[in-house]
Amino acid sequence: MVDHHCHSVVAAELADDALVGLLTESDRPPAPGCSPFDSALGLAVRRWCPPVLGLPAHAPAADYLARRRELGAAGATGRLLAAAGLDTCLVDTGLTTAAGHELLPLAELAGATGASVREVVRLESVAAAVTAGAGDWPGAVAQALGSAAAGAVAVKSVLAYRHGLAAPAERPATAAVVAAAGAHLRAGRGRLTDPVLLHHLLWTAVDVCAELGLPLQLHTGFGDPDLTLHRADPSLLTDFVRAAEPSGVPLVLLHGYPYHRQAAWLAQAFPTVYTDLGLTASYTGPRVAAVLGEMLELAPFGKLLFSTDAYGLPELFLVGTCQFRYGLGAVLADWQADGACSAADAERVAGLVAGGNARRLYAL
Amino acid sequence: MVDHHCHSVVAAELADDALVGLLTESDRPPAPGCSPFDSALGLAVRRWCPPVLGLPAHAPAADYLARRRELGAAGATGRLLAAAGLDTCLVDTGLTTAAGHELLPLAELAGATGASVREVVRLESVAAAVTAGAGDWPGAVAQALGSAAAGAVAVKSVLAYRHGLAAPAERPATAAVVAAAGAHLRAGRGRLTDPVLLHHLLWTAVDVCAELGLPLQLHTGFGDPDLTLHRADPSLLTDFVRAAEPSGVPLVLLHGYPYHRQAAWLAQAFPTVYTDLGLTASYTGPRVAAVLGEMLELAPFGKLLFSTDAYGLPELFLVGTCQFRYGLGAVLADWQADGACSAADAERVAGLVAGGNARRLYAL
Amino acid sequence: MVDHHCHSVVAAELADDALVGLLTESDRPPAPGCSPFDSALGLAVRRWCPPVLGLPAHAPAADYLARRRELGAAGATGRLLAAAGLDTCLVDTGLTTAAGHELLPLAELAGATGASVREVVRLESVAAAVTAGAGDWPGAVAQALGSAAAGAVAVKSVLAYRHGLAAPAERPATAAVVAAAGAHLRAGRGRLTDPVLLHHLLWTAVDVCAELGLPLQLHTGFGDPDLTLHRADPSLLTDFVRAAEPSGVPLVLLHGYPYHRQAAWLAQAFPTVYTDLGLTASYTGPRVAAVLGEMLELAPFGKLLFSTDAYGLPELFLVGTCQFRYGLGAVLADWQADGACSAADAERVAGLVAGGNARRLYAL
Repeated sequence: MVDHHCHSVVAAELADDALVGLLTESDRPPAPGCSPFDSALGLAVRRWCPPVLGLPAHAPAADYLARRRELGAAGATGRLLAAAGLDTCLVDTGLTTAAGHELLPLAELAGATGASVREVVRLESVAAAVTAGAGDWPGAVAQALGSAAAGAVAVKSVLAYRHGLAAPAERPATAAVVAAAGAHLRAGRGRLTDPVLLHHLLWTAVDVCAELGLPLQLHTGFGDPDLTLHRADPSLLTDFVRAAEPSGVPLVLLHGYPYHRQAAWLAQAFPTVYTDLGLTASYTGPRVAAVLGEMLELAPFGKLLFSTDAYGLPELFLVGTCQFRYGLGAVLADWQADGACSAADAERVAGLVAGGNARRLYAL
Repeated sequence: MVDHHCHSVVAAELADDALVGLLTESDRPPAPGCSPFDSALGLAVRRWCPPVLGLPAHAPAADYLARRRELGAAGATGRLLAAAGLDTCLVDTGLTTAAGHELLPLAELAGATGASVREVVRLESVAAAVTAGAGDWPGAVAQALGSAAAGAVAVKSVLAYRHGLAAPAERPATAAVVAAAGAHLRAGRGRLTDPVLLHHLLWTAVDVCAELGLPLQLHTGFGDPDLTLHRADPSLLTDFVRAAEPSGVPLVLLHGYPYHRQAAWLAQAFPTVYTDLGLTASYTGPRVAAVLGEMLELAPFGKLLFSTDAYGLPELFLVGTCQFRYGLGAVLADWQADGACSAADAERVAGLVAGGNARRLYAL
Repeated sequence: MVDHHCHSVVAAELADDALVGLLTESDRPPAPGCSPFDSALGLAVRRWCPPVLGLPAHAPAADYLARRRELGAAGATGRLLAAAGLDTCLVDTGLTTAAGHELLPLAELAGATGASVREVVRLESVAAAVTAGAGDWPGAVAQALGSAAAGAVAVKSVLAYRHGLAAPAERPATAAVVAAAGAHLRAGRGRLTDPVLLHHLLWTAVDVCAELGLPLQLHTGFGDPDLTLHRADPSLLTDFVRAAEPSGVPLVLLHGYPYHRQAAWLAQAFPTVYTDLGLTASYTGPRVAAVLGEMLELAPFGKLLFSTDAYGLPELFLVGTCQFRYGLGAVLADWQADGACSAADAERVAGLVAGGNARRLYAL
């Protein structure tokens, strides 16, 4: 299996609260009486992870946390990552910490997972590190991204979090970009949220990806509270998709939920668009087969990719792979039982989505 | 079971047409050849109600109506409400009639249901009754709401029906509110539709709820033809949710369908947000388990509440409770059969959603 | 069965690429490594069509294409269309070619299908052929549409493709229409995309339909890459639906996916609104029952109509009818097995959706 979009994990010992806090998209403390374990994702963690640490499936959360402490972070992490059975991981290096702790460097993640690890460069993080003056900013960003992406397998954008996906069809004019860069620099180079700069970055990424022959990944759909959900509907990207089509750069719409049917339609309509479910498979727990089924209504079987979008916790690698295997297996078994496809069809679809499509797309 | 959002019922004898007209969200006459009984809700009524009145399940609509007339309104109402088996009902008192008839007073509803009945105050109804001049309007509304809510368990807003849920993050300026109130008064104090007044009311509700320690319920998703569906997407509330977060006031997103996945994400992302399916469980009839399943993909198990949203007909109390029990039971039985959760997990989730969450949230 | 919305088919021999190119909503060449057969629709074609041409179900695509060539276009077309078993087809005549080939005239389509064939007039095509000057344009369009629709059973609009469905409640002023017509004529009478002209056309269609007693069909939901999906959400039509309600003209929302729940709500809320799933049933392949189930959550059983939306390929008539029969059969069998409806209910719903509703609506 090729995990075409994930993040690294915390190696340090985490307090229970910090660990549990990585089992939700919220960055706030839980509401009174609530625990992130009381969720579809919590059920999935308690289904797949305890057996790898020597406990029965569905062990209570408290037992699981106690057992994890007993094994220590390194021991638990090693067992969980190895059990995920991944072949290749494409890691977004734009996040470097989780719950205040450093994430494992890629070489160590490769060692622990036993997988081949390649880098996905995060566009907005590269741009945020550029220190050039306003007039030089566009060129400096292009150069920084080109350098960063030279050894990578893809570029990723988190535009959805910053301004939403309603990008216009036109590239921003250079004068407007320089003016916006000036304002950004005068304001102290904080988080990049100016739409002109963000859209300029998107086109810079298209140029760099076209030159290097790389796909461009875009976050779409749900995420943490920083995001406004309806602005992350991938259908809002349609004007940009059409405008970027002549570049030939593949656009990979990550996650998409609850707009995954919209993402699937884009993948059918436009040859350059690909899609995945990502963390949706983990977060929807017992419902993964239903959601995967929805995605497969319009998504071409050669355009859907598997990923875990794991972040911070090694549990999320194991849960992501188990949920995907279980969910896709259930979908395809249903289809065969209904007479909707043959066993050979089911096997072929599973192979494409689990890794074949990613190997072709990222030239692995 | 705690029904955390419902309305009272008509005690009078209803003509068949009037009764059937309460089985749809439409307030128009049916299209040629159509009856509200020919719907998912109609099937649910014919499944659950006839046995309580001494007929077989799925009895034809005409037989059911005849039997109901035979028993009389009081007899049928008593049997149907008692059979719902509710423990507590939180009743929105903003609607006082249905199909032109008065609704039962709360004390009589309590008697007929055998449930403890508490009041939910409707924000826009309280405001509509305020007679102060423009300059005094903001203060008078705050006072009226504070008085009305003093003995209640929650405040409810129907902003979704009036201007939609795209409320700005900022409170309207007092001068703008006074000006808008003046225009409203000069226009004859009709239905409140001015967005400045509506958003001011929302913030007044936040203030009153914060002071009294009450949750604020908000209608979201489908309703009658007065509503424009896409403006009732709860995701449009996100800026307001963030702005109101420091107040600590719980925001309860009612119903949500077909945007219930968006509501569930808000409930996961923001500690202050809660959600329910309400009348969706009744209206979707045979499909209730599928829709509940969708809601449970992202909604924290401690954030989803049961309600019937029954209005006008006692049938809707019985149908709401039966549909919920049946639907949640089917979802959780599937999850167990698939190995996705334990029997203890299923029991715990059922208890939280059926009443535990409501008892905690409303301090019952 | 009454197919209340479809197109004609190509009679000529098609090269494999051209034939396969009609199995997707995309008009672009497939992405590297992808074939339109690798999709839910592809599975549906390989399920239902090979047996009609003497091959086993799920025969590989290459075998199917070879067998089709062996039989010749006429032979294959005749077998596939006859096997669809349609009683009546309402054909949108706005498209006259597919993959560069002429479509069969209606009389020949009637012969090949064995069905009674009636015409649906496409609004924008009629308007595009009008050659009057700007001042005469509104009158000439009304006259042309009146003439074209005189022998037809419905008018159809593709507004969703041109400007999206967010039509205002008000008719455009005549002066604005004349001005926009002038600009359109000066620009060389290309594709009609001006919103003033498009909205004027919509109201012209309402007037003509009201006079002739015809329904007005509207494309909603997914389509080819020319369309921007979120602008095709039928909920955006709500202001227009309300404004057109007094005319009494039935508005038939075609397809709707992935906004079919929104379409279903409109059909429940407004007596004038009807809905269908159309090509969604074919395109979602193994998932047809799930999607039909979603539609039946709110759609009144007297308001949902069957159609294939077949276009170009005779396979799409057969697949459309088989998918619908299979999908609706599966939904209703589930409902009965769950105790949600009686056998008589299931039979009645199937009869209404398969043809009864269309016969009533189009006065067939």
